[in-house]
Formats: sequence, C-alpha cells, structure tokens
Amino acid sequence: MPDGGRGSATVKINVVQSVLQANDAVAAENRRRLSEAGVLALNLMSAPGSGKTALLEKTLTALGPGQPAAVLTGDLQTTRDAERLGGLAAQVTQINTGTGCHLTATQVAEGLRTFSLPGLAYLFIENVGNMVCPAAFDLGEHLRVVLLSVPEGDDKVAKYPTLFQPADVILLTKVDLLGVLDYEMGRVRADLARINTRAPLIELSMRSGQGLSRWLDWLRERRREFCSVARTPA
Amino acid sequence: MPDGGRGSATVKINVVQSVLQANDAVAAENRRRLSEAGVLALNLMSAPGSGKTALLEKTLTALGPGQPAAVLTGDLQTTRDAERLGGLAAQVTQINTGTGCHLTATQVAEGLRTFSLPGLAYLFIENVGNMVCPAAFDLGEHLRVVLLSVPEGDDKVAKYPTLFQPADVILLTKVDLLGVLDYEMGRVRADLARINTRAPLIELSMRSGQGLSRWLDWLRERRREFCSVARTPA
Repeated sequence: MPDGGRGSATVKINVVQSVLQANDAVAAENRRRLSEAGVLALNLMSAPGSGKTALLEKTLTALGPGQPAAVLTGDLQTTRDAERLGGLAAQVTQINTGTGCHLTATQVAEGLRTFSLPGLAYLFIENVGNMVCPAAFDLGEHLRVVLLSVPEGDDKVAKYPTLFQPADVILLTKVDLLGVLDYEMGRVRADLARINTRAPLIELSMRSGQGLSRWLDWLRERRREFCSVARTPA
Repeated sequence: MPDGGRGSATVKINVVQSVLQANDAVAAENRRRLSEAGVLALNLMSAPGSGKTALLEKTLTALGPGQPAAVLTGDLQTTRDAERLGGLAAQVTQINTGTGCHLTATQVAEGLRTFSLPGLAYLFIENVGNMVCPAAFDLGEHLRVVLLSVPEGDDKVAKYPTLFQPADVILLTKVDLLGVLDYEMGRVRADLARINTRAPLIELSMRSGQGLSRWLDWLRERRREFCSVARTPA
C-alpha cells in the first residue's frame, strides 16, 4: 500500500512536468504580448495576508492616472480584492481559482483578453496567497515581487527558498510591528545572503508609509529600463 | 496554444484524483494503526507563520511527561521546527517535502515507522504552512486543527473556505495584536457562520497565554472521548 502511494507520486511528477511545459509556452506568449504592448508585468507572491492588496492600493494611488495600471487578482473564492482595487486601477479582473493553489499562465492569458492593453504602463498580477505553489509557475511576468510580513516570523526565507530565490525584489511588510514582536532582521538578511543577493530588500509599512517611496522609486526605475529596451514611451 | 494549456489541466485533474484515492487508502491505514495504538492524532494546518510551532511548544510543555506526545513536522526545507520541539516532545520526526506544498498520507506512514507508538497519548502533525493544498489530503488524523492569525487579516475564512470547512477546532492566534491592527472579529464570525458552525473558535495569544487553558481543555476532552470509544486508558 505504501508502494501504491509512491507509484502514484511518480505519475504525478511526470504530469506536473508536462503541465509546467505547457504553462511555460503560454507564459512566453503572455510575455511577448505584454512586451509588444509596452506593459511592464509584475507577479506579486506571498503568504496569505502579508499585504499584497494593501500594497497595490497604495501603489495605484501613488502612480495615479498618468501611469495607468491593470490588475489581475487571483483568489480561491470571493471578489473582495477586486472590489478593494476597483476604483484605483484603470482595469481590474478577478480570477477565481476554486481549489487551485496558484495562478497559471492560461488563466493570465484569459485575464489579458479582458483588458485593453495599449496605453497601460503596468500590469500587477496578484497571485494566490501561498508561499509554495506560485513559485513554480511562470505567468509571463517581467518581474517577480515577493512579500514577507514581519508577523510571519524571521524564519520564512530559509523555509521557503523556492519563493525567494527567483525574486527581483523582496518587500518586508508590516515593519511597524518590529517593535511589538520578537524579530531578528539579521536572521532574514543572513538567509537571503545564501540564496538571493540580487534582489533588494525593502522594508515597508502601509500604515506609516515607511519605505513606500523606495518601493515606488524601484518600480519606476524598472519601468524606465523596460521602456528603454522596448523603445516604448516611459 | 491556450487549448494545449486546458488539455493538460484536464489530465492533471484526473491524475490528482487517482493520487487522492491512493492517499486516502494510506490515510485510512494510518488512522487504523493510530487508533489501535490508542494515539489521538491531530493535523495542524495554517498559513506560514501563524504560530503552529509556538502552539506546540506551549502545548507539549503543558501536557508534560504524563501525556507523552509525538510530533511529525513537515517543511519544505530546514529542521528548525523539529529543533524547537526536540526537547519538549517524547518523539519528533521532521519530514522535508522539498517543493511539496503539503504532507501526504504516505509521508506520515513513513514518519510513523520512526516512532514507538505504544504509550503515546497524542500525535501532532504540523503540516506545511499553506492555506490551500493541505486541506485536500487526509493524513489519517482523527481531528483537524486550523489556525489563523490576526495579522493575516479578517478576510481569510471567506477566502480559504476549503481549509476552514472541515476543521474540528479553529484557533485565532496572536490576539494580543487585536488592539494594534484593524480587525473585525464580527466579519470572521459571520464568515464562519456560513461555512462551519460545528468547530469552536478559540482566541489565543502565545505571548500572554490568553486562551491556552481553553485550548488544552478542548484537547483533553477530545482525548477522553477518543479513549472512551477506543477503550484505551485516558
């Protein structure tokens, strides 16, 4: 009977690989479409409740109508995130994944069909709150934004390296709780030094506004780089 | 190309169903072994960093050597949780899942082989921190314990119903942060009233100790029920 379990697990791995290959082809096509339209796409990943939607609320407000953004937001159920962002983004589409633990490139392709891409500066893809599964699925984004929140504890980089390894920027959220909770920033930095020295770590508080301008500077700089490569207007 | 993606998704669903069936058979055998040995098994599930290991630290200390417990702790990498619990539990085994987003019944069966079950009162299975995948996999536990922490926000029950629906008890952790964060308890209770009215909601703080005696009372009561059914000594 344990053999039965192992046999099935082997089959599962093969199929997941084929799903991943199909996913990667769709992701490459998504990225091509987005690049062609001059839309910089960011995939936001984190545990549930680390503040992806709150970050988007602040970011969309700061960018304003001069830098129009679309949002694709993935959730098992409910349209709460889309409702929160509805008035702030130029275009918002919610993808309900049912029991799916991550967004797929095909779901993003379907979401892109609901948007009018020309004129958009950014696409923010808010993935399902999960530190494991989203990391394995390329959605066609240009950049990966990984959030971790102070109340989750200072051991999460070491525990979920597949999420943090490919990140282009790491946002430590809810830093206003640093004074209230036991949290060793040195532990986080030491773990990051072993797996990802490329991505900057930005400390953020949506309540105090700390770090928000550094995040927005990073974002606008990536947009400038993207436009100079794509030769679309910044 | 989007058709290719959809075709693969269909194949994936069939295979996941067969994996689930194989898993359920192994889970049933795990449960039979645990019941026969008089060991009450609890499956602890939550998002990353909601306090499963901290809860186990307090619980094992409170139970003491008179109610010996084993712990199976699942994580992608690192043995940090096992190290934290090593001195407190009678027996601890760590299962590293690599990129696996949940424990499986087969992994638990392998973990059980590392334990001497006779004489144990409890088995605590600390699942991978994830609000989606663990919910679909029966491990052979008798009871499901679901944690959600205040800093994750008051919308998580509505967003992750598959986790909360089959819970036997729901632990709201880090309630010491209720005064610091915006959190509507009414929203949590209203969402629970729609999907799970059977499980008690216990408010906990590992820092202040609030709610710990209520949790321990619930746990000991379940053990008494279990022993009266299994006719093993309480």
